[in-house]
Parts: sequence; C-alpha cells; structure tokens
Amino acid sequence: MAIPQTNFNPPFNITRASHLVLTAQDLAASRDFYTEVIGLVVSDEDANTIYLRGVEERGHHSLTLKRTTAAPTCECIGMHVFSEEDLDKAKFHFDRSGVPAKFVDVPFQVRTLRFSDAMGTPVELCAIMETRPRLHVEIHTHKGARALRMDHYQVLVPDVLAAAKFYMDLGFRISDYLVVANHTIGTFLYRKNNPWDLVLLHRAGPQFHHCGYVVESLYDLIRGLDTAGNIGFGENVEHGPGRHGLSHSYYTYLRDPDGHRTELLLPAIQVIDRYDEPVAYSIDPTSTGNRWGFPPPRSWFEEASEFVGVPLRRPPAEGDPLTLEKYLASKSWRRAPDAMRKSA
Amino acid sequence: MAIPQTNFNPPFNITRASHLVLTAQDLAASRDFYTEVIGLVVSDEDANTIYLRGVEERGHHSLTLKRTTAAPTCECIGMHVFSEEDLDKAKFHFDRSGVPAKFVDVPFQVRTLRFSDAMGTPVELCAIMETRPRLHVEIHTHKGARALRMDHYQVLVPDVLAAAKFYMDLGFRISDYLVVANHTIGTFLYRKNNPWDLVLLHRAGPQFHHCGYVVESLYDLIRGLDTAGNIGFGENVEHGPGRHGLSHSYYTYLRDPDGHRTELLLPAIQVIDRYDEPVAYSIDPTSTGNRWGFPPPRSWFEEASEFVGVPLRRPPAEGDPLTLEKYLASKSWRRAPDAMRKSA
Amino acid sequence: MAIPQTNFNPPFNITRASHLVLTAQDLAASRDFYTEVIGLVVSDEDANTIYLRGVEERGHHSLTLKRTTAAPTCECIGMHVFSEEDLDKAKFHFDRSGVPAKFVDVPFQVRTLRFSDAMGTPVELCAIMETRPRLHVEIHTHKGARALRMDHYQVLVPDVLAAAKFYMDLGFRISDYLVVANHTIGTFLYRKNNPWDLVLLHRAGPQFHHCGYVVESLYDLIRGLDTAGNIGFGENVEHGPGRHGLSHSYYTYLRDPDGHRTELLLPAIQVIDRYDEPVAYSIDPTSTGNRWGFPPPRSWFEEASEFVGVPLRRPPAEGDPLTLEKYLASKSWRRAPDAMRKSA
Amino acid sequence: MAIPQTNFNPPFNITRASHLVLTAQDLAASRDFYTEVIGLVVSDEDANTIYLRGVEERGHHSLTLKRTTAAPTCECIGMHVFSEEDLDKAKFHFDRSGVPAKFVDVPFQVRTLRFSDAMGTPVELCAIMETRPRLHVEIHTHKGARALRMDHYQVLVPDVLAAAKFYMDLGFRISDYLVVANHTIGTFLYRKNNPWDLVLLHRAGPQFHHCGYVVESLYDLIRGLDTAGNIGFGENVEHGPGRHGLSHSYYTYLRDPDGHRTELLLPAIQVIDRYDEPVAYSIDPTSTGNRWGFPPPRSWFEEASEFVGVPLRRPPAEGDPLTLEKYLASKSWRRAPDAMRKSA
Repeated sequence: MAIPQTNFNPPFNITRASHLVLTAQDLAASRDFYTEVIGLVVSDEDANTIYLRGVEERGHHSLTLKRTTAAPTCECIGMHVFSEEDLDKAKFHFDRSGVPAKFVDVPFQVRTLRFSDAMGTPVELCAIMETRPRLHVEIHTHKGARALRMDHYQVLVPDVLAAAKFYMDLGFRISDYLVVANHTIGTFLYRKNNPWDLVLLHRAGPQFHHCGYVVESLYDLIRGLDTAGNIGFGENVEHGPGRHGLSHSYYTYLRDPDGHRTELLLPAIQVIDRYDEPVAYSIDPTSTGNRWGFPPPRSWFEEASEFVGVPLRRPPAEGDPLTLEKYLASKSWRRAPDAMRKSA
Repeated sequence: MAIPQTNFNPPFNITRASHLVLTAQDLAASRDFYTEVIGLVVSDEDANTIYLRGVEERGHHSLTLKRTTAAPTCECIGMHVFSEEDLDKAKFHFDRSGVPAKFVDVPFQVRTLRFSDAMGTPVELCAIMETRPRLHVEIHTHKGARALRMDHYQVLVPDVLAAAKFYMDLGFRISDYLVVANHTIGTFLYRKNNPWDLVLLHRAGPQFHHCGYVVESLYDLIRGLDTAGNIGFGENVEHGPGRHGLSHSYYTYLRDPDGHRTELLLPAIQVIDRYDEPVAYSIDPTSTGNRWGFPPPRSWFEEASEFVGVPLRRPPAEGDPLTLEKYLASKSWRRAPDAMRKSA
Repeated sequence: MAIPQTNFNPPFNITRASHLVLTAQDLAASRDFYTEVIGLVVSDEDANTIYLRGVEERGHHSLTLKRTTAAPTCECIGMHVFSEEDLDKAKFHFDRSGVPAKFVDVPFQVRTLRFSDAMGTPVELCAIMETRPRLHVEIHTHKGARALRMDHYQVLVPDVLAAAKFYMDLGFRISDYLVVANHTIGTFLYRKNNPWDLVLLHRAGPQFHHCGYVVESLYDLIRGLDTAGNIGFGENVEHGPGRHGLSHSYYTYLRDPDGHRTELLLPAIQVIDRYDEPVAYSIDPTSTGNRWGFPPPRSWFEEASEFVGVPLRRPPAEGDPLTLEKYLASKSWRRAPDAMRKSA
Repeated sequence: MAIPQTNFNPPFNITRASHLVLTAQDLAASRDFYTEVIGLVVSDEDANTIYLRGVEERGHHSLTLKRTTAAPTCECIGMHVFSEEDLDKAKFHFDRSGVPAKFVDVPFQVRTLRFSDAMGTPVELCAIMETRPRLHVEIHTHKGARALRMDHYQVLVPDVLAAAKFYMDLGFRISDYLVVANHTIGTFLYRKNNPWDLVLLHRAGPQFHHCGYVVESLYDLIRGLDTAGNIGFGENVEHGPGRHGLSHSYYTYLRDPDGHRTELLLPAIQVIDRYDEPVAYSIDPTSTGNRWGFPPPRSWFEEASEFVGVPLRRPPAEGDPLTLEKYLASKSWRRAPDAMRKSA
C-alpha cells in the first residue's frame, strides 16, 4: 500500500513540534526529574503547574506539568504555526474539513487553537508565546543532560496511514517509514529541518509514547544518567543508551515519576531538499531494530500515556515485536552465526 | 570474616596485569573483532597466532590469539614483573612455597615463568618483551574504540578470600571488596596505580570472566560500538553501556566470536597512597549493582572461559544474583517508590 | 540606522546554503586536506575537478574544487531553492529587478541559475542535484573531523546593509547583527532553521571569507586537528579552538593549501519561530569578541579569497579590529583587573 | 652529554607529586577561579587559607592558597612518600647528603619534611594526610572542568641535568627529554605510572611554572573554559587548547588571578615497565613544538612564580624559543611549503 503524498501547498504553516502538556501526581518529584536529570529550566510555576523549557529555547515552555490526583495522562501535544494569521487559516480549514477545533486560553501563549486529529489526538497550535532568554551558553548553570530543545513526539495510533495522511495534507513530509510484510507500521513525519516532528507507530491508540529532547553531546546524555543515578532516578532508565537502526541517532529513554517517557537524543541530520525522498525500511521481526544495543523491554512497547478523555482504539492486529525479554530468552553468545558477520 | 592483609614487602615485584592468551576457532573473525571493534593493532601474526596490543602499548602484545579446533579457552593470564631478577626471585619463592612454577618459552618475551595460583589459575610472569612504537597519537590510523591498553582481568574463583590472600602475599592491595551477608564475594586487587589488576569474583572456577581494555573517551567507546554494529558484531554487545556502582566507571562488555568477554572502560581513578584503605561495599541482592543501567543478563553471570586443563571447582553456594531477566520480570516503571528517590 | 526588514512572502523559495566552488593550484594537496582532515568524501572526480560532500549529505556535492594555474579564487557560492519551479520564479524576479542572472550548465545539477548579488558576489541556485547515499552512520569509514554538512558562508562586503537588504528581500531573516558605534558591521542571515546561511561582514569586498562545515562533536573536531597535525597540516590551523561570543558556538578555522578558509563548528541552535527577533550585539573594540580563546590573528581579518573577475570595492572606513597581534602586545596576565571579573 | 641514570633502589620511596602551596592577594577571587573554573572542592578554609582538592582525591588537599599582601609566590611543591617510615629514611638521607631538610608542622598532614633540592626549590614530603571522601561520581555537584587530581609540576631551573640528577638519585625515572643542539633543556621525570610528576625546563630558576590537573574528557576541559568565559575569567586562558608534540596530550593553560599558572590535561599514557626507556626529542627551534595549535605566547616562556625567599639563578644562555608573537610575525598562510606536507 502506497504511503500518502505531502501537500506542498498546505492550508496553513505548521513549523514544528513545540510543546507538551502532561499531568503528574507528585509535582515535586517530577520537577526534580525534569530539572535535575533532563536539565530543563523552570520558566514559571505555581502550586499546580510548572512550565519548563530547554536551555536553548526562547519560547516560554516546551513542557507543562499539571498536578492531578487522577491517573497521569497527556493533555495534548503542541505545535507552532508561523504566524497568528496561520491560526485563523487553520480554524477555517478545520471547520471546512469537519475537524473539531476551537480557540482556548493558555497562559503565556497569545492565541491557541485546539483540535483533534484523525485518530482523536488532542493537538494545540500557537504562533506566539512569551519569550525568555536563551540560556544555552550559560553552561555553568546547567544541570543533568542540559536538554537543549523539544524535538518530537511519538504517538501510538491504530491506523498509521490514516493518521499520516491527516498530517501530510497539512504539509508534513515523511523522512522514512517502517514496513512489515507490506504493511506500514510507522512513519517519521517532519515539518522543520530534521526527520522528526511527529512519529506515528502502529499500536492501540491514540496514546502518547514519548517526547524527544535534543542534547548537545554524549557527555551531556551521560551526565543526565549519572545525575539520575545519583539522586534516585537510576532505575528510571528504561532503554538505552543505544543506537537506533534506520540511520537514526543515539537514544536513551527515561520514565518520569508518573511513567511518562522522554527520549534524550543527539542532534539529527538535516532534511530539507526536494530530493529528500521518503526511505522505506523493511523491519525484520527477528532483528533488534538497532545498530547496537538491546531491543526495548516489553514495557516500551506496551506502556504509554493516554490522552485525557480520548477512547483507545485497537488496530486489527497489534504485531509481535521483539522485546528484550524475548531476545534474552533466545540469545546465544557463543559463536555468532556466520550470517551475522560480514567482512569489515 | 576479615579480609587478608597486604604484604608490603613482597618477595618479588609484580607491576601490573599485562597480557592474555586466548584460543579461537576462527582466527579471521577474531582478528576482525579485536582490530576493527576494540581497535587493537597487530604486532605480529602467522597462520595460527595473532599478537595484538593497544594503541598506546609499547610492549609487543597484550592479547595473544591462538587457533584451536577444540572448545575456546583461556591459556593463561599474564603479568609483568619489574626486572628479570624478579623472575628468579619469583621462582625461588614459588619453589619454597610449593607453588608449581616453571620457565617456559614464549615468543617475543625474554624469559617467562608460568605458575598456578591458589585456585589453579595459570599465570605467566615476564619482565621484558620486545617493544613496538606507541601509536596513541597516530589517531588517523586508529579504528573502532581505539583501545589504549590492557587494564585488568576478572577471574571467577570458588574461594575469593583464599585466592585474594595468595596475591596479597605477593604485594597486591585491595581497593574495594564486595560483601553479601558477611561473606566476601568479590575483591578488587591492584599492583599498579588504579583499582584493578585482578578482580576475583565468587563463582565456580577458576574461569576467565573478562579482560578490561581502557579507552580514552566515551566517544571512542561509542565508536567501537558503532563499528561493531556496522560490520556485523552489533549483537556481540552483552552488557552496557552503563555505569558501575561502587564509585567505579563506565563499562561495556562485548563477547568475541568465541564467546570470550572484553570490557571497555574509561581511565580509572588513581590509588597510590598508604591511606587508600580498602573500601567495603555491602551488596543489596535486590539492587542492580549499577549507578545506572540494567543489571547484567544471566549469561554475564553464568558464562566464562575455562582455563586449559584446569578442573572447575564449585563453591559451597553460588549465590543468586539479580540478572537482567529477573529484573525485567519484576520491574514496574510507574510511580517509582518514594524510598527510591531522595531529594537532589 | 535600522536594519532591513525580512520579506516573508519572497518571490521564490531559497532553502539553504548548499555548495561552493573553489579553485586550487594543487588538487592532490587539497584533496588530502578536505578528505583526511575535514573528512569530506569524494562523490566524483576527474583530472581537473573534485566533487566533495559531507558524510551526512545526500546531495552530490557541497564543495567543488577546480584546478587552476592562476591565483586561487572562489568561483561562486551556491544555494538550494526548493523546486525547479523556484528557479523560473527566480529568473523572472531577477530579470524584472535588473539583477544579472542566467542559466548555466553545471555537472550533477539539473538546472542552475547564476546571478550576481548587490555586491557583485556570484551566486548559484539549484533545486535538484544527483543524490548519493548518506554515510553518517558508516562511522568506521570516516576520517578526520568527519564533517557532516555544509552550513554557511561568510562573505566580506563593503556595504553590509545594502547586501543584507538584497537577501532579506528574498526571504532571509536576521538572527543577530553586529554594531560598532551605531554602524552595522555584520549580519547573520538565514533561511534554514539555524542562525547562519550567509554571514556578511564589513570589509573590502565582495570576498569569500570562509565556509562552515558542521561536525558532530568536539571529539570529531579534535580528531580533525590531530589528523591535520599527523599528516602535515598542523600549521594550517589559523584560529581556535575557541568559543565565539554572541551566544554562538565553538569554532576552529583552518586554511586549505591554497589559503581558502574553512570553519569547523558544532550544530547550531534552532531558530524558526516568528518571535525569533534579530538580536543586536554592540561590539566593544577592546574585546576579543570571544567567550574564551584568543582573538583572530591579523590574517583572519585581512586575507580572503577573491571571486573570479569581480572587482573589489573598499568601504569608506575599514575599521580597526582587535587582532591577536595587538592583543598580545597589550596583554598583562597578572592581577586581572577587577572590572574583568564578576562574581560567579 | 648523557642524561643521568635512575637509582632503582632509592633511599626512600617517593610515590607522586601531590600538593602545592601558593600565595594569593585576593583569596575570594582565587577561590572562585579554582572552584568554579578548575572545579576543585574546598576541604577546609579559614580567613587566610583555603585547602582544595580534586573531585577524585581522597587526600585532604592538593592545593593550598594562603593570603598574602606581598607579591604572590609559590611556598613549596609537595610530594607523597609511601609511609611515615620513608620520612625518617628521607631525613637520614638528606642529613647525610648535606641537603637542608627539617620537619615542619602542616595542618591536616601527620608529619611533613621540608627540604631544598639541588636548585633550591622548596619541597615538602608527607606520607599521611587526613582523608576526605572521593567525590568523582557525585557528578551532579561538580563545577567547571571538574578537575580530578593533581598530576605534576613544571619547575624552571638554570641547570636541568643537575636538577634531574638530584631526583633520579631518589628514584625518579625519565620518560622523555628535550634536546637542542646537543644540550638537554628539559626532562620529564616521574615516580607514579605516567610520564610526569616533575617537569624541569631550562630557564632562570628555580621558579614554579605550572601545576597540572587531570580532567576526565575534552568536554570537561571545555566546560571549564566556558565557565571561565561566563564568570569573568575568559581572558585568563593563556595558551590552548592544543596538542603537545612529543606524543603528549591535549593541554590548556590558565593563569589564576595572581598569575599562577595551571594546566588542564587529559589522562596520560601509562609508563611502568623496565623497557620504558627514556625517549630523546630533538627540538627544532623553528617548530611550534605542538602537534597542532599555536606556540605559547611570550608570557608562557617568561613569566613564572618565584619560590618564597629563593634567589633566582640565570643559566649561561636562556635560549630563544619560538613564541606566538614571533610565529605570527613570520607566518604565511598561503601555499603551505611542500616540505611541510607529507602524504596521508
């Protein structure tokens, strides 16, 4: 089945994945996790809400944490459009297309349009936030992994191609996509100039799987992990460090105190040009999916954050990924099979 | 039970862990592994033997690979004494002490004394090897992790304290040791100025568990892993990267094509002073043993290389370490227990 | 004097700085420099021309070297437009605006439009090049600094604001600009999502000052320098490593065998949003201009590559920058003046 | 002229360069410099004295700063002997040899023997200090370059060979030495297992030129420099980053607020073996002395800290080193001479 085509004249101009709203049961614990380990800085906070940004970010927040007594969820993912005018174009477009969309008030954002995408994922658009100083050169004040900026979201959806088509109609391009037995089970969609703003993966959904923050170097990533170990979050490292397959970069996934997942990644490649055509990767179900490093544990495949009030839909078949648990059960370390090795 | 005391006036002067002899069924595969991934350089080779050294090493070899058609084993671990005279003192000492010891001929080494330690481990002593140029600044010729130098061995033994006493009588000091329920299950012994020349761990033995090569930086370690992934050894990464507990450093363990295990580690701390007293670490059997990173998989605990012709002896009790398999089966990622977290 | 305004509805869509043509007297020496030290890969070559690209680049070339027996020059700088249609729009726009522009044949590029900007700088536009595989994960094949991709050019011009206006009419934005005594002496212009595609600096011009290639890490940058030192280019390092002021990144400048200058830099910050307003920096003529590291030597200010056949125009006043030579002559290392130090 | 021979049965056992006493006019400024930029931690302090150690060090102090109103000087360099008994052996040896030596009281050190070496340099020996916890894994508390441990001193002396002989009689070995026109102008002496505990360089002396602290990685070194830039010490960077010639490592030299010089360096190679014979390097007076990076500025050659109350003696000839100032005056960047370049 063919992947959808990008609409290169989209009805309005989404520029990038930009901000995220999560709920948390213990704000103090989450504050420690995100400021000390991930290295975000607090732009504003009150008793029930914390607004955080990466050390490089000029926008007021890329992560908002809201206190909850209920099960922790994802309230919405957020994207930037280029101008306030784009918000009006978006409202017009969604109204005409039958997509639920309405303006809402969000602190520190000028105007905010909330809509639900083809899978029901709540998404927030805004053009202008309050700004704060970029702090990336204030290195002596940085903590943990000193995360630079929000990069992308991964969302689990029951129909990857339908979800992708929704965004490709809005101008998103595909850098690469995952195929199992002729079935597209994942797409890497982008608006800004790297391969990821929105990763869609085939599972029951919509669910928020993780957000990705860019760090400057492996040493920063490791400093985040050392800090995690030192202050009591050592066991929150769920997966990694390792190197993704598909020519992607290094990764580490951590779970926050409420189980929400964050990926730390290195700066990505640049994809801008018209000749950056989508690359298809056939997934070998017996492969770890990595260049090196264990496959993800079962939790990585099975656990995700629900979106507030959005019903879960299961796909016809969920697949049977190679979990770390299965991998270890079948692994033999002696005499790597010849087929595995090629000459250097 | 008290740990043994170091003899600060040892009968002869062992200076460091220095070289290792392993057998391999497929020399070409092992050559690729050690030169392309670990980054060793070949000092000499013929149809049946390869002599390798780290890029910083002046001594002719720190790893000798010998072709075998039998099961792969460790022929011996090797240590340097300071002078040829120390070899004679060692022979005299061993003869007087009833330790089996004899001079043997080893290519590229002037004189070599082979003995069996208290556990039966075959150990080789030499003072003078042929030398080759140090190549550590020839960075443009380096490959993989560009391993600098052999650092230490880990040997599994059925009686840690008896084995440690043998070496402490020869002048080895203890940097730290592991205690479970009042029982010493591991000792970190050193002669040179860092915490490890010989690590003894409680298991059936004697068995060769791994050797450790020092790499210069995390980027070198990762380049080794990237190379492993690129040339077909990606699944030879058994454990890591992670950070040891006990104030130790970063690690990654790889299995070579015959299953022999190599650790890549960063430069260690310096331990020289008289006031560097042994540090005891109580092992919590429910802990990963790491500052961060998964505990080792079962294979890490259960698989090791036998020494040629040395019978295995089992300890009264083998212990029940926390393997990755057990850890994953019991792990819950949501809501880290309060006890796990302390304030930053 | 106010800086010009960006035209957010430009007549055609330039996407990024993309490729450069330099002439060289000794192609073999230049090939060594760019492949072994900078780490570019050769996409194609013949007796008189070498086409090089960064290890991450999919486009066929970002640097073309042409053999010359005359003085080495810069033939043109090149930019990508998004689509072939943009080339036609560009031709139409330039013709209407009286800007000299014509289609030329360039190997490995589909269609190429050459024009002269407001200062006379020859610039090449193309949308589609032949593609080659991205090689960024083939780390075991990389050399030197393993440069990832072309990032930007710095061009010296006698009238910074007039030159900037030309590009801002074409959609370029300003990330920051340099002011001395109310006079704008430098502008950092961008189309893609980081602060630099085209840096204009006040001097006699137009002259090509340097191109910048992005490297992945400080370790890569240093490996480039180590390689330079090892193979005979150690004295080609003209300036750095150091850290720019203005919240910019780390730098090192090297001179190629013909004196052309390349900067190696780390990945930049992301600038995308409407609220990323231009930042003005007042230059203190007694400051090094750096966060740390010596100011550039006189050669950095005074030497640049002329554009083929383009006459040089001098500005009314050239300024009197703080060179390394002047800095050293006046520097005292004892007792840093109190004014220099602020509390941590 | 032949270099002296090491006495491998020295009269007592010096183990390493260990601690240093400097005087400072503004303790608060120096405290900022050493804690925020170099990353040392304060073990103890009062109104007139600060005791600092590297984050890895167990000994109480490796750098003592004492308030002065006079010109800043070096009070002494310090070394560790292995045991208290070695202090008595040292006293006996020095008395018999006519070397001025007496026991003095030094806070936090059990017994301290102060002597003057062949050049008059005041040197302090001690075996046991109070201990403090090693903090190297407490990475989230580290600052600046997070210096690990004191490594070595460089002392300027008017007679390098006589000074070296004094120390080689005490068991110091030479890793390498510098020769100009058959004259030995520098020696790298060591007791611990790397090439440097005491570097002697030919100039008027004795003068304290610098101490060297080891940092873990280039990223730590750069974080130190970034911090220097951020808190007002950016212009205290005198030389580097660069890479030494002679197969030595990366370096950066900083001047503290009183002009005392500290080198930050990466972990060195290991030199232990009997076959680690001294390496002679012939210095080409037209060479930068570096693998890459500018030669040191004149201040690096001409400025050093005097030892309290020790008269300066000038050598017959001081030499004419290639300073950065001279290098820049003669440097041409265009067309590197063929002789400079060899094939990769």
